[in-house]
Amino acid sequence: MEVFLNGHFIPEERALVSAFDRGFLYGDGLFETVRVAHGRCFRWEDHLERLARGAAFLKLPLPSALATWSGYADELLARNHVEEAVLRLILSRGPGTRGYSPRGADQPTLVMSLHPAPPGELQNPPRWRLATSSVRLPVADPLSQFKTCNKLPQILARAEADASGADEALLLDSEGRAGEGSASNLFWIQDDVVCTPPLAAGVLPGITRKVVLEICQSLALPCREAFTTPSRLHRAQGVFLTLSSLGVAEAVALDGIPLPQSNLTLKLTAAYNRMLLSSRDHLRY
Amino acid sequence: MEVFLNGHFIPEERALVSAFDRGFLYGDGLFETVRVAHGRCFRWEDHLERLARGAAFLKLPLPSALATWSGYADELLARNHVEEAVLRLILSRGPGTRGYSPRGADQPTLVMSLHPAPPGELQNPPRWRLATSSVRLPVADPLSQFKTCNKLPQILARAEADASGADEALLLDSEGRAGEGSASNLFWIQDDVVCTPPLAAGVLPGITRKVVLEICQSLALPCREAFTTPSRLHRAQGVFLTLSSLGVAEAVALDGIPLPQSNLTLKLTAAYNRMLLSSRDHLRY
Repeated sequence: MEVFLNGHFIPEERALVSAFDRGFLYGDGLFETVRVAHGRCFRWEDHLERLARGAAFLKLPLPSALATWSGYADELLARNHVEEAVLRLILSRGPGTRGYSPRGADQPTLVMSLHPAPPGELQNPPRWRLATSSVRLPVADPLSQFKTCNKLPQILARAEADASGADEALLLDSEGRAGEGSASNLFWIQDDVVCTPPLAAGVLPGITRKVVLEICQSLALPCREAFTTPSRLHRAQGVFLTLSSLGVAEAVALDGIPLPQSNLTLKLTAAYNRMLLSSRDHLRY
Repeated sequence: MEVFLNGHFIPEERALVSAFDRGFLYGDGLFETVRVAHGRCFRWEDHLERLARGAAFLKLPLPSALATWSGYADELLARNHVEEAVLRLILSRGPGTRGYSPRGADQPTLVMSLHPAPPGELQNPPRWRLATSSVRLPVADPLSQFKTCNKLPQILARAEADASGADEALLLDSEGRAGEGSASNLFWIQDDVVCTPPLAAGVLPGITRKVVLEICQSLALPCREAFTTPSRLHRAQGVFLTLSSLGVAEAVALDGIPLPQSNLTLKLTAAYNRMLLSSRDHLRY
């Protein structure tokens, strides 16, 4: 596999960054995970827009105009002869002197790499067992609105889920409300309404979260932002998670207790997959 | 300068890590900043002990026995002909597959590099202007007890301080209490007692913080753990910060308002510097 690194396409074993890169030292960067279907990057503009908002917040310079990045992604797919994949894009602040001050670090690092698309999810959504994590999301954390490279809380949560035999962790906020998965947004169906926590609760503004809310609107399915707790999730009509690499994943159990299944999840999954496969929204940034 | 990287000594421009290293992707690692004086690593054992505790918490494997690391540090100093420096040690989880799960990532990356010692602080403590940051420390964050590579809150705080012309940021916790600097622990003198926030407040267990508390005990200076606020700091007898690279730094202003100066700061700085220069505690781990 070839990797894009700062303007060059190189074999992945030679995709190396400086040990003085602030991404490596402090997680001083941002990333995106983009689904590639039929050779097209799904919701490319949305991903770049989120990355650009994060870069503005962190005052992290862009190494080149965003409009040129779609050409890099296209060439990466072509060189690797890949049509179905997950594209990971990382922007770090690049090498700097010792210390937290970003002063003088103005040579950002940009990496794009391709990873296998999850197998077989287009027919049926994956069925995930969830485990409530002991890791809490801080309320009102401004960094929660960006996909930063500071992911130790999510890594700890996911490792807990691994250890308990679950597929994904459910993180609560410091007030005990259900926030999001370690790498996914949370949805549930209550009184025939599709619900998800508001962004103000400190959850990531997921691109797939946004797409699912758009689908609900287009199908005239009632949806709203709301709060819930693990015990209320057990009484919901259905629970699912959204993430760009995979789309929609059905939650079949939480902390070892089965969750109710809803046909709505299958309907939303099918609509999402139709959109993914018919999308022509690639490379128009 | 040569850098230690996974068992090899290499020129710094060739000190490269994989773009798939989880340190680069997610800040999945730990680091230490060790003062080197007279060719000896000050409080080496304390630094390694903190790193080892963090590695155990993150279930991050060590690439080799800690006892061998002092030999690497010694050789790094000898190869670079350095006697006064700051040694930075980074341990990341190394390369892994896509996603937060640490499963299968068992080739950690270990880097040691040397950086210039801060000039001239041994005669007089540096005089720092502080600026209260808008970035808040989450209360009861278990990660606060380790020096992790997730440092975006500290980077944001330090960038705010830079922008306001200050030398260091003062971070408050979510309840408005003074916690720590972006890269330093906070001390103040109140009623002739040396005070610092308790570790349970979510501040880093700084090695220099510990040394200063030991000095207070050896000099029979009363000291205790306590909480304070920015407005109470203005009414303290003196304020200072501690950090391993530098020792003790005197705080001369907070948010543009001068802070009282205390002879105790000079006394503690002198005692710290005597300990630094006479220490024989190197390389006994």
